Amino acid sequence: MHEPCDPQRLAETLSQIKKKYVILSGKGGVGKSTVSVNLAAALALSGKKTGLLDSDLHGPSVPKMLGIENEQLGGDDTHMIPVECYNGMLKVMSIQFLLRNLNDSVIWRGPLKHSVISQFIGYTLWGDIDYLIIDSPPGTGDEPLSVIQTAKPDGAIIVTTPQDIATFDVKKSIDFCDKLGLKITGIIENMSGFVCPHCHTETAIFGKGGGESMAEEVGAVFLGRIPIDPSFVSLSDKGHAFVDKGEKNATLQAMNAIISKITV
Amino acid sequence: MHEPCDPQRLAETLSQIKKKYVILSGKGGVGKSTVSVNLAAALALSGKKTGLLDSDLHGPSVPKMLGIENEQLGGDDTHMIPVECYNGMLKVMSIQFLLRNLNDSVIWRGPLKHSVISQFIGYTLWGDIDYLIIDSPPGTGDEPLSVIQTAKPDGAIIVTTPQDIATFDVKKSIDFCDKLGLKITGIIENMSGFVCPHCHTETAIFGKGGGESMAEEVGAVFLGRIPIDPSFVSLSDKGHAFVDKGEKNATLQAMNAIISKITV
Repeated sequence: MHEPCDPQRLAETLSQIKKKYVILSGKGGVGKSTVSVNLAAALALSGKKTGLLDSDLHGPSVPKMLGIENEQLGGDDTHMIPVECYNGMLKVMSIQFLLRNLNDSVIWRGPLKHSVISQFIGYTLWGDIDYLIIDSPPGTGDEPLSVIQTAKPDGAIIVTTPQDIATFDVKKSIDFCDKLGLKITGIIENMSGFVCPHCHTETAIFGKGGGESMAEEVGAVFLGRIPIDPSFVSLSDKGHAFVDKGEKNATLQAMNAIISKITV
Repeated sequence: MHEPCDPQRLAETLSQIKKKYVILSGKGGVGKSTVSVNLAAALALSGKKTGLLDSDLHGPSVPKMLGIENEQLGGDDTHMIPVECYNGMLKVMSIQFLLRNLNDSVIWRGPLKHSVISQFIGYTLWGDIDYLIIDSPPGTGDEPLSVIQTAKPDGAIIVTTPQDIATFDVKKSIDFCDKLGLKITGIIENMSGFVCPHCHTETAIFGKGGGESMAEEVGAVFLGRIPIDPSFVSLSDKGHAFVDKGEKNATLQAMNAIISKITV
């Protein structure tokens, strides 16, 4: 576990992946994993061979959101076999598949985390795939740094919620991308307004428009707004992607419009 | 910046602090900083000499939530002078006070982060204080580990939101505390239900009761529920603590009831 992936092996693995995107945010709980899972599931459902790497080692949410948190990893000393779903079109890798108990915590410091992320990227049998989507924990520290330096993504998709206290942290992610020379594919404003299911009046619980005005301010593409939707949360808790099982409503439309902008 | 605080100096600093609490969560965006800021502000307003350490180096939210994000740190080679508010009753320390530009990102790996957190704890002139509240970034990695090993808190206050995908990650924080021998003071369920301001009907956007049932499951004290309140968000964006400037409503009552349980 203590050595990063061999550079030649890493280069071979990466050469088989057509497009790589990392999902970033300076702020936690804004919906990075939700965006990652739904983007990857939508790609798989549309016939694209897709990999999904959960680089959050302390709070891996991706497996539970896809209902595969009890799966175990296959492989041997030389490679890891990712967990498959959507008829093998989606291959998922997460630290969760290596934990003995569901609730075990991973109490690791940075250097070990770098090695593990590098191994997850390079030693996983992704095969020839069209897309690799990489979900990242919040912040600008070890995990996103290791992902960017190791996987060399084509772009970063930045997720924020509308309130100032979120965009304040998320601007640090934009500075982070600039300093590392990573292109920003676009910015998504999640949890943008809530329409009461009883009276149909909208309340801007976390504000509204903060992500869009931040995108303008930093000169980045604004990919769109996703409203707050309780069915999104309950489907996620049941292990279903919204793009797969969600009802055909404004949230699904918003999500699909954003995905089509990313995958043009 | 590269060496942790001298152990003797650290011991002297810690000996002047009566009670220390760390605010933890395996999940981001659940309200750790909100709880930290409001708990610290409530203590200061009630006449307790309080310190508030923001140990989130990549997404420091505490200064902005108190409207002091443009302050700069005083001190010299041997000590740091924290930023004061509430008539000097609250002393705040955050990496934000060391950044040249508001939006600068801190792209540091684990070992440097450990040294900086250790220095923030040991070299800050907290003085004789009644409480030190330590806000932590999400997860079970370098920052919370450094905080716990360096400050040796009296207890952890764990914040979650109600949905399974949150409690799933937060259970890892409980495992983390158990493994490190840190007492859990209690669990707070934040963003617990939203009452529409137009029709007054409640919607459980992120579910409801998940924090309480998790507390029962792990045998921890349940400190209470805080509902979703848009005025909480907008006050935070303006740099005001809710316990200071919030209207006297159910959210304020819930927050104050939780604080009184922590500070008995």
